[in-house]
Amino acid sequence: MARAHWGCCPWLVLLCACAWGHPKPVDLGGQDVRNCSTNPPYLPVTVVNTTMSLTALRQQMQTQNLSAYIIPDTDAHMNEYIGQHDERRAWITGFTGSAGTAVVTMKKAAVWTDSRYWTQAERQMDCNWELHKEVGTTPIVTWLLTEIPAGGRVGFDPFLLSIDTWESYDLALQGSNRQLVSITTNLVDLVWGSERPPVPNQPIYALQEAFTGSTWQEKVSGVRSQMQKHQKAPTAVLLSALEETAWLFNLRASDIPYNPFFYSYTLLTDSSIRLFANKSRFSSETLSYLNSSCTGPMCVQIEDYSQVRDSIQAYALGDVRIWIGTSYTMYGIYEVIPKEKLVTDTYSPVMMTKAVKNSKEQTLLKASHVRDAVAVIRYLVWLEKNVPKGTVDEFSGAELVDKFRGEEQFSSGPSFETISASGLNAALAHYSPTKELNRKLSSDEMYLLDSGGQYWDGTTDITRTVHWGTPSAFQKEAYTRVLIGNIDLSRLIFPAATSGRMVEAFARRALWDAGLNYGHGTGHGIGNFLCVHEWPVGFQSNNIAMAKGMFTSIEPGYYKDGEFGIRLEDVALVVEAKTKYPGSYLTFEVVSFVPYDRNLIDVSLLSPEHVSAPQHCLLPDPGPFLPLLPATTSSVPAPPPGGSALVAPADTHWGIPPQLIRDPRASRTFQSDQPAQPQVVNNWRNLRLGL
Amino acid sequence: MARAHWGCCPWLVLLCACAWGHPKPVDLGGQDVRNCSTNPPYLPVTVVNTTMSLTALRQQMQTQNLSAYIIPDTDAHMNEYIGQHDERRAWITGFTGSAGTAVVTMKKAAVWTDSRYWTQAERQMDCNWELHKEVGTTPIVTWLLTEIPAGGRVGFDPFLLSIDTWESYDLALQGSNRQLVSITTNLVDLVWGSERPPVPNQPIYALQEAFTGSTWQEKVSGVRSQMQKHQKAPTAVLLSALEETAWLFNLRASDIPYNPFFYSYTLLTDSSIRLFANKSRFSSETLSYLNSSCTGPMCVQIEDYSQVRDSIQAYALGDVRIWIGTSYTMYGIYEVIPKEKLVTDTYSPVMMTKAVKNSKEQTLLKASHVRDAVAVIRYLVWLEKNVPKGTVDEFSGAELVDKFRGEEQFSSGPSFETISASGLNAALAHYSPTKELNRKLSSDEMYLLDSGGQYWDGTTDITRTVHWGTPSAFQKEAYTRVLIGNIDLSRLIFPAATSGRMVEAFARRALWDAGLNYGHGTGHGIGNFLCVHEWPVGFQSNNIAMAKGMFTSIEPGYYKDGEFGIRLEDVALVVEAKTKYPGSYLTFEVVSFVPYDRNLIDVSLLSPEHVSAPQHCLLPDPGPFLPLLPATTSSVPAPPPGGSALVAPADTHWGIPPQLIRDPRASRTFQSDQPAQPQVVNNWRNLRLGL
Repeated sequence: MARAHWGCCPWLVLLCACAWGHPKPVDLGGQDVRNCSTNPPYLPVTVVNTTMSLTALRQQMQTQNLSAYIIPDTDAHMNEYIGQHDERRAWITGFTGSAGTAVVTMKKAAVWTDSRYWTQAERQMDCNWELHKEVGTTPIVTWLLTEIPAGGRVGFDPFLLSIDTWESYDLALQGSNRQLVSITTNLVDLVWGSERPPVPNQPIYALQEAFTGSTWQEKVSGVRSQMQKHQKAPTAVLLSALEETAWLFNLRASDIPYNPFFYSYTLLTDSSIRLFANKSRFSSETLSYLNSSCTGPMCVQIEDYSQVRDSIQAYALGDVRIWIGTSYTMYGIYEVIPKEKLVTDTYSPVMMTKAVKNSKEQTLLKASHVRDAVAVIRYLVWLEKNVPKGTVDEFSGAELVDKFRGEEQFSSGPSFETISASGLNAALAHYSPTKELNRKLSSDEMYLLDSGGQYWDGTTDITRTVHWGTPSAFQKEAYTRVLIGNIDLSRLIFPAATSGRMVEAFARRALWDAGLNYGHGTGHGIGNFLCVHEWPVGFQSNNIAMAKGMFTSIEPGYYKDGEFGIRLEDVALVVEAKTKYPGSYLTFEVVSFVPYDRNLIDVSLLSPEHVSAPQHCLLPDPGPFLPLLPATTSSVPAPPPGGSALVAPADTHWGIPPQLIRDPRASRTFQSDQPAQPQVVNNWRNLRLGL
Repeated sequence: MARAHWGCCPWLVLLCACAWGHPKPVDLGGQDVRNCSTNPPYLPVTVVNTTMSLTALRQQMQTQNLSAYIIPDTDAHMNEYIGQHDERRAWITGFTGSAGTAVVTMKKAAVWTDSRYWTQAERQMDCNWELHKEVGTTPIVTWLLTEIPAGGRVGFDPFLLSIDTWESYDLALQGSNRQLVSITTNLVDLVWGSERPPVPNQPIYALQEAFTGSTWQEKVSGVRSQMQKHQKAPTAVLLSALEETAWLFNLRASDIPYNPFFYSYTLLTDSSIRLFANKSRFSSETLSYLNSSCTGPMCVQIEDYSQVRDSIQAYALGDVRIWIGTSYTMYGIYEVIPKEKLVTDTYSPVMMTKAVKNSKEQTLLKASHVRDAVAVIRYLVWLEKNVPKGTVDEFSGAELVDKFRGEEQFSSGPSFETISASGLNAALAHYSPTKELNRKLSSDEMYLLDSGGQYWDGTTDITRTVHWGTPSAFQKEAYTRVLIGNIDLSRLIFPAATSGRMVEAFARRALWDAGLNYGHGTGHGIGNFLCVHEWPVGFQSNNIAMAKGMFTSIEPGYYKDGEFGIRLEDVALVVEAKTKYPGSYLTFEVVSFVPYDRNLIDVSLLSPEHVSAPQHCLLPDPGPFLPLLPATTSSVPAPPPGGSALVAPADTHWGIPPQLIRDPRASRTFQSDQPAQPQVVNNWRNLRLGL
């Protein structure tokens, strides 16, 4: 898990905010918040003065004859993390939280956000802004109906509302004599003007073949084959999510924090491929790689990103049917396609195909997890030596694990903002330390680390919770019940095509038994140098059924408000299970190799099956974790221009530190902070258990 | 489980037919089926000649200018079992299976049904009828588009299509230039004429207060209170399901096989109560019980059943909002209410309220299960003595268990057609023996009994599987894994408001582990002298969340085609769980008291927790099963006129046979076929396990 986001799209924020069951607001270092009821109002130094920008925005609204203007927190691609130039809501309000919608009328301005951000909003917003402690479109529309006159026009940028969100506003306003008005020129951008950060413009590069599961030509052919087989015979597939275009063409860049993507759309037909992006960002080699100088069915025509709406509208004039995934298509595209020319699924064929990794992609993703484990184990070993000295805090720790990851081969930076949380901070749903605000790590309390890396071969995500001193009996019990949940779900054998929702309770049963639980989801998909939260794989009700070749995190937890937090997150590959009687059954092969903290395990709560892999759990032998790609410099692509990749130093290697393997039953699992030699790991299950 | 139906409505048939995973067709005694490809065609004696009725139907269609007419298998109330006078599809086609839709055009006639009925349809239909081995509206519409000309009109009886089914036809026909035409006079009925069985006309009677959880006045007030609290402020609730009206007024009759209902609708407003039924069926006492001579808010005005559509239409002219449950409302009612005057939920407030039994209803339903267990145990003991003699068959066995139930106090007949299946017959999804076609019970094979009773205090449903000889190791393993599933789910502790779908896999895990599974649902709600399959409680995705006071069956199984079938079904009450740490948690209290067959348990597969109730499973003490109602004749209502209730003979009593209790660990559990004395059962958990 990273922050409170799930999946590569902001609509999941809501889901997660609810799932955490209204966690307490984050206290950002004391109650220094605004007080608008005094005269003059009290405003902390953290507040941004928005009077001028609001005045300018209202002038723009007047020009468009609007009574209200909606400013969402999204970008045009439902990205989980958004670029600075897309942080319109943050700029106009001063409030920088990742979730929250602003609405401005001619007289008032208001923000709606969830409980994680209430204190932050009161510290950052001036008294121009009302704070509404609610989420969803319903309270916004209820407010609008009292604030704007009948006949009023409510403006919005159609590229910032998903189809679902637009429908929700539209439905709520029906019969109210207020009109939703789609305005493609963003009014906040007009006011922001030259202050607005530039759109990223660094080169878009092709992944070396060593890091791709298929060539882009194979992927294009695969999607076309799905178009031909589709009952409704779509003539084109339109890709709106950045990860779709990045995956399809094996292209990457660094436009989005933590996600190696670039702003783009793709319109793929039987006879043409149109990639909408900034052409100046492609080198001549990349253009050649894309066959962009020809016009045949296997030639990629690069068209300007800004032209996508007009181009789709023009294409839709023909006798065509455009296949879209509604989850990632914004209303700005949707509204220019006549309904009878739409072929809609929740997820595009690219999202569905990408969810199942082929054999090479599986190998690549596993290899990245082996190196990632080395970095995390080095960090945990380092902590064990240094925490007792009292010199480590959450922020410096987070920096160090990022540094260790950066020293691993093919590293390309963290895959999300590291959650490094000590003591009571680990119980907060949404916590990352800052240089200014952080807590010292101590042998007297638990420490939770949820972090991951981007590598050219794969994206990683792992959570471990440790205690260097004497945990309480309740801490041990809770940790062990979380561990049992992790093991029970990881080892479950279930029929092919079972949906995650049907089995995720196995990760909770041991907690439920004692009256404990956790308020978040149990897992999410993960990509090959793509999203750390890769939809639509996972255990939520809107995830698709499990299939061989998918990867998912498995991450039960337990959180005691004001005291501590526990989460044990592994990534697992969905594999075929060999059952006593023949049948089509699946199970998980865990590909995260960082041991659990034996110091926190109450062995008396474990069954013999939990301690050792039971005979009936016929997992394929995990096999040796040998280097998968020749470690010659020729196979290593040059670091991406402007990317954060680091060349691995000579003293880091793949594999698990051999010190850990020789005697995993020794009292502690962390015994060395030295980089390890490549090594065959055969007894990894005991290792994982720390027993 | 009864037959292949789930819930009190035919739309569940489909769900179940799918869930069973296309079971093999039932071979109804050899392959004596029609052959329409010879000249003349071969027709078995079981075939019905439909030429004349089809000709007459086509004349009616011509009068209405129809190109096609749809004949569904439903009645006007989505009843699970339908009355003979509603068996239009069976009458016009000759095919008597419970699921299947017929469509007649001017030239062709066709039936669509699922695999359970293919052989039966070929034995019963003459060559006027095509058999289509598909289900759902899509294949029907696809066929219609090739069979009827553009501009063609497709007629249907709006009281035989649910809102969902109508929408599905309407959507599929959109843009096809074929029109759906609602005709309230049923054309099959016109042709059927005087041959059509009469609509039931037996008295409608009030349950004695001893058998009701609340008075009808209390229930009416409760529904009105929900109307007042509803955000959309409905002015009326319309009840279409027969069980809704029966529950609301504590009225019963016997119009429907196995369900003690009568044809009716209710329109409840703040100031009036209108009950649409046949007024001549109420005695003066019942009319007085209903306050039907006055017109105030607590007076029930009886209006004629046939007037419901006109009355709703007239009511809908006012400034009103009518609250309906869309699952049980037919298009014939829906189409006369303007959309803006509808307040829709999936289930009506009566269905939602009825799902949670109050304390008295819980006590009543438990009491009926105690007496029901006596009947089933008597039967199992009798079988153990008589099966070795070779004189028992599936049909005579079913008759005997029905007889034993009839001897219990307050009995009012079986709650569904008894499934009495020996050997390979138990593996069939849809099997009930007949006098002509049945199998002898034998010590050499397994026997499955799925049966239930209607009692004035409650409805029961239980399945046991037994073997009197030497079961194979695989049979014992499969039985034990099914038993583990039953125990694991029954003992699960889960958070309040968890949906059944999230936890039903606990009933499957032990089977999955070995590569085994079952193709049906895991449980369904049950009523107090109402439906044996009472929606919306259960473990399916469209069931509502579990709440304290609900009753559900828990019924994992395993079926080996051509060999044997196992199902272990108990009914359980949802109760609060006491957990180690405080929280709002639920678990189940099993109220079925028939032991499992120790002969089929492989104890080596059970954990110690399975054998004895674990400490952490803090179920409330089941307490003594003492008589709940004074057993004086004055408290016993007279048998319903025409009902099947039998007065219990003096030698049957409530309670579990004491012989079973004194030494439940003796080698066999069934030790007496004599009716038992009332008895306190304290060690029922071991008893249930047969250990």
